[in-house]
Amino acid sequence: MGKVKMILDCDTGHDDAIALMLAASHPDIDLLGVTVVAGNQILERTLNNTLNVCDHLGLDVPVYRGMPLPLVREQFTAGNVHGESGLDGPVFGPRTKEAEKESAVSYIIKTLMKSDGDITLVPVGPLTNIAVAMRMEPNIIPKIKSICMMGGAYGTGNMTPSAEFNIYADPEAAYVVFNSGVPITMMGLDLTNQALATMDIIERMEAIGNKAGKLFGDMMRFTLISQKECFDLDAGPVHDVTAVAYLVAPEIFRMKSMFVEVDINRGPCYGRTVCDTIGNSGKTPNARVGIGLDLEKFWDLVEENLRRLD
Amino acid sequence: MGKVKMILDCDTGHDDAIALMLAASHPDIDLLGVTVVAGNQILERTLNNTLNVCDHLGLDVPVYRGMPLPLVREQFTAGNVHGESGLDGPVFGPRTKEAEKESAVSYIIKTLMKSDGDITLVPVGPLTNIAVAMRMEPNIIPKIKSICMMGGAYGTGNMTPSAEFNIYADPEAAYVVFNSGVPITMMGLDLTNQALATMDIIERMEAIGNKAGKLFGDMMRFTLISQKECFDLDAGPVHDVTAVAYLVAPEIFRMKSMFVEVDINRGPCYGRTVCDTIGNSGKTPNARVGIGLDLEKFWDLVEENLRRLD
Amino acid sequence: MGKVKMILDCDTGHDDAIALMLAASHPDIDLLGVTVVAGNQILERTLNNTLNVCDHLGLDVPVYRGMPLPLVREQFTAGNVHGESGLDGPVFGPRTKEAEKESAVSYIIKTLMKSDGDITLVPVGPLTNIAVAMRMEPNIIPKIKSICMMGGAYGTGNMTPSAEFNIYADPEAAYVVFNSGVPITMMGLDLTNQALATMDIIERMEAIGNKAGKLFGDMMRFTLISQKECFDLDAGPVHDVTAVAYLVAPEIFRMKSMFVEVDINRGPCYGRTVCDTIGNSGKTPNARVGIGLDLEKFWDLVEENLRRLD
Amino acid sequence: MGKVKMILDCDTGHDDAIALMLAASHPDIDLLGVTVVAGNQILERTLNNTLNVCDHLGLDVPVYRGMPLPLVREQFTAGNVHGESGLDGPVFGPRTKEAEKESAVSYIIKTLMKSDGDITLVPVGPLTNIAVAMRMEPNIIPKIKSICMMGGAYGTGNMTPSAEFNIYADPEAAYVVFNSGVPITMMGLDLTNQALATMDIIERMEAIGNKAGKLFGDMMRFTLISQKECFDLDAGPVHDVTAVAYLVAPEIFRMKSMFVEVDINRGPCYGRTVCDTIGNSGKTPNARVGIGLDLEKFWDLVEENLRRLD
Repeated sequence: MGKVKMILDCDTGHDDAIALMLAASHPDIDLLGVTVVAGNQILERTLNNTLNVCDHLGLDVPVYRGMPLPLVREQFTAGNVHGESGLDGPVFGPRTKEAEKESAVSYIIKTLMKSDGDITLVPVGPLTNIAVAMRMEPNIIPKIKSICMMGGAYGTGNMTPSAEFNIYADPEAAYVVFNSGVPITMMGLDLTNQALATMDIIERMEAIGNKAGKLFGDMMRFTLISQKECFDLDAGPVHDVTAVAYLVAPEIFRMKSMFVEVDINRGPCYGRTVCDTIGNSGKTPNARVGIGLDLEKFWDLVEENLRRLD
Repeated sequence: MGKVKMILDCDTGHDDAIALMLAASHPDIDLLGVTVVAGNQILERTLNNTLNVCDHLGLDVPVYRGMPLPLVREQFTAGNVHGESGLDGPVFGPRTKEAEKESAVSYIIKTLMKSDGDITLVPVGPLTNIAVAMRMEPNIIPKIKSICMMGGAYGTGNMTPSAEFNIYADPEAAYVVFNSGVPITMMGLDLTNQALATMDIIERMEAIGNKAGKLFGDMMRFTLISQKECFDLDAGPVHDVTAVAYLVAPEIFRMKSMFVEVDINRGPCYGRTVCDTIGNSGKTPNARVGIGLDLEKFWDLVEENLRRLD
Repeated sequence: MGKVKMILDCDTGHDDAIALMLAASHPDIDLLGVTVVAGNQILERTLNNTLNVCDHLGLDVPVYRGMPLPLVREQFTAGNVHGESGLDGPVFGPRTKEAEKESAVSYIIKTLMKSDGDITLVPVGPLTNIAVAMRMEPNIIPKIKSICMMGGAYGTGNMTPSAEFNIYADPEAAYVVFNSGVPITMMGLDLTNQALATMDIIERMEAIGNKAGKLFGDMMRFTLISQKECFDLDAGPVHDVTAVAYLVAPEIFRMKSMFVEVDINRGPCYGRTVCDTIGNSGKTPNARVGIGLDLEKFWDLVEENLRRLD
Repeated sequence: MGKVKMILDCDTGHDDAIALMLAASHPDIDLLGVTVVAGNQILERTLNNTLNVCDHLGLDVPVYRGMPLPLVREQFTAGNVHGESGLDGPVFGPRTKEAEKESAVSYIIKTLMKSDGDITLVPVGPLTNIAVAMRMEPNIIPKIKSICMMGGAYGTGNMTPSAEFNIYADPEAAYVVFNSGVPITMMGLDLTNQALATMDIIERMEAIGNKAGKLFGDMMRFTLISQKECFDLDAGPVHDVTAVAYLVAPEIFRMKSMFVEVDINRGPCYGRTVCDTIGNSGKTPNARVGIGLDLEKFWDLVEENLRRLD
């Protein structure tokens, strides 16, 4: 069936970086471009982080500058989890790679419009770039094969009791995307919080002995510290990696079809992905939602991939 | 430490009836009165059901007629689960017991005002009676020892993906109660869906051989059928019983302190009890929320109690 | 056609007091009872003010204690406009009159239930008493001839840019009342801000030379000062009087039928009476809304009435 | 002080077309470009109408294609008022003028970024283009001299009792713009409904005897018919013209400074511009709002300008 053509849309962050490493090097993936959005940190930093990772590992993929602010709400970042740079931990050399001139929104629109409808969008940050693209050129909507995203939760959120960070950072954009009619695969916290890296995993990836393994270690050692500080946990979830992994190894995930809508009321559930887990809304499912994964096979996939990199 | 003085506030249905049987006969409980509210069915039926159960088992407790409509929203009942009468299944003889002249709201206010602050309210239906009492006479608030309620969920709701029936039936009343400052013990669906009666349990209770055991069976056999039809389940939760059981056997429950607020925005989370399960709201807990129970000991408690009745 | 049978529901206040004087003494009005609600001030003070006015002028009408708190929201009073007592200005002697034992809500329900459907409710404060009565005993709804109220605005509010005080003090109660199906006559700020007492009017009423005229003067001289301070106006509206006046002299008012709904979203329009002034909602009118009055005839009516009192 | 540099942002319709004629030909205006947005009709039609008007009158100004959909909500157009084409009435010859290649959002961003902060934005349709530009490149915000817009109302709306069309068609975009901190001049319905063209005015403009006068007549004769049908009025407001006229003749308008916020709650006030007309919000004004105009001088201005055109 050929490679999975994909555009990765990220706010690089620790787990975004690992997702990028997987997307850029997996033999079954054709990574067309990387679009960057504000999220974990302000855009200058998420863009810089993305370019640094590409530079460091020699990933030859065009990177596009996206939306620096959410659609409607005031900006909200996650410095507590990802540090001041948005990717604290590793130290990068001087950067040579630059973002493309074209904007991320323009790139998404043009690439989709000239495609054969075979491109999957993989957003692992706030959905601002994709929502703006959909509203600026609605003709892209039937051109999108599917959206395989990290974001949301049917259980408890990580920013508020109701909301997960990526959705909370731009609920109105998520509302646009979930209402678009595009088939959605949603990897929410319920699934991604199972994708935990412990110190064992970190040491295993570092033992590969290449730059990619070391970068994994440098990043996840920071994550373990911040998870301990923020949530008193001894392991760090690599949320965003699951969305990429699903596209090449769907068999290691358990999914459930649900109707999902985003609450944009400015109350205690602002930014919640309301998931009809048991079918009592009476509405037709618009998303397949991740509920479980085979953790062993997941880390095998990640390790195997790190070995392919420098 | 003496008996637990309590007012049971219910919308008798099936699980309410079993809660009533427990409250009326447990040696450690002093059931002062039963106040009835619309909920599972319209008030005439929930009142009739309550009086029928008392009549049938000779429970000598005053019963008060409460609010027939929710505080603000249009009425919403649950005929699908509890049948047309609100307590389909058992057949009762002609009823002799009558409701008291005084209204439930008036009874709650007067009883609390003349108390020594040692009365626990045990609402297992919509919170309308209690909310109206609090707004009509705010001086009752410091007189309430605690509220031990069945309602809400931190996970998925049973009426909508967000909301549990008792809260959804009167979200504004729940908002008033959760904002009142009274210590709250909340048995939500997360806990009560664990309190499952299977056919084994039904047969065990019927085997007691008295009227109470037979009533348990007549009711729960209907519940098993409706659970099968509505939710494709082979067991029926006895939600309301947990709130009463907790007061005499707290040791069989696992609880967690959380900040809980009720969403009264008319969006997809209307009627959700937003529970801060992991402490990311930064707000001081206002409720102890049930998360687990020792099911074996729970059914032992129920059986032991049924044996005390006729 | 006989006298207008009415229950006056008020949060006495300056203009409430004048409304009460009119209701209690006009020959075409049969004032059955006065129910008091928290609003301009806390209930103890609005009740005390009501009893003081009755005492002072010898008004022989039963007074009932109503709801001390709004239905759902936190309490909000208007001390800035009506002073600390809620009726600053006049000095009353020791009070002898007491409130009835029965609660306002109970009185409203019982009186309506035994009536022939010929009683008009005249609320000139927050609608809490009436909303609770409607929810506690919905059978009163077809018994209410009409509700002639002071509250709301189709133009600018006086508490927020959107909301008038009586509605803002209990938006959820207003929502219940406007959705009840009872025919409503609404005297909102658009009309009542035209019912202005200037110093000329005050002197004219004082010149009557009786206690009632002096009370009018003592109250409205305070109102003129507070209007000057709060709104930089040289005249004081007697909002509440218009609702009573309409029932005996509808010919001096210009009215328009509109669909009116109350916004209970907790945003910038919380408590707004959304009035379809030009018919673009497509909904059937549920209220006749005051838009103009013959001011000369209005003051003639008030003067004529003050002369009837002591 | 030199000419007013402006970008006109419109959804050409009838009054937009007259605003465009004024902006393109007034000697005190330097019309840099025209950006088109969906609104009165879908984008293809508003763009076509804009190009037709330019073609027909030989207006040599670049026209840019803007947002075809609102930011978040589903699309909503006004076919009832402006006809199927969005500019029914006049008949245009074959069109030769084309829109520029660059998008409206990109044009707005680039033009502002290279400016000296002396450009005024004049949006007379939904605020989608401007909101997206602000969110895509927030550095434009301090570069905008001011925004002089047609939209909103402090009184009654024309789409719902609360909301005016331009704001209702994209409330979230308006929310972004009003929260941006840019100085805003708002010509709402309260003002624009005073800018009425009667048949006298139409005949006066037609009597000029040029193409521009005839186009005015062809358009406004249709408007008079649709106003009669939709609102039973004998005159048609030229809403959008006031925003342009204000910039060259502010002395013919009466303005008031107000705090204005946009209600984005999905209730009965969705899309309302909540205007603090009397200062009771306690918030610093962020807009000057039109409240009155000298109609005679307004039509003199329009006529004088039509004479300048072909």
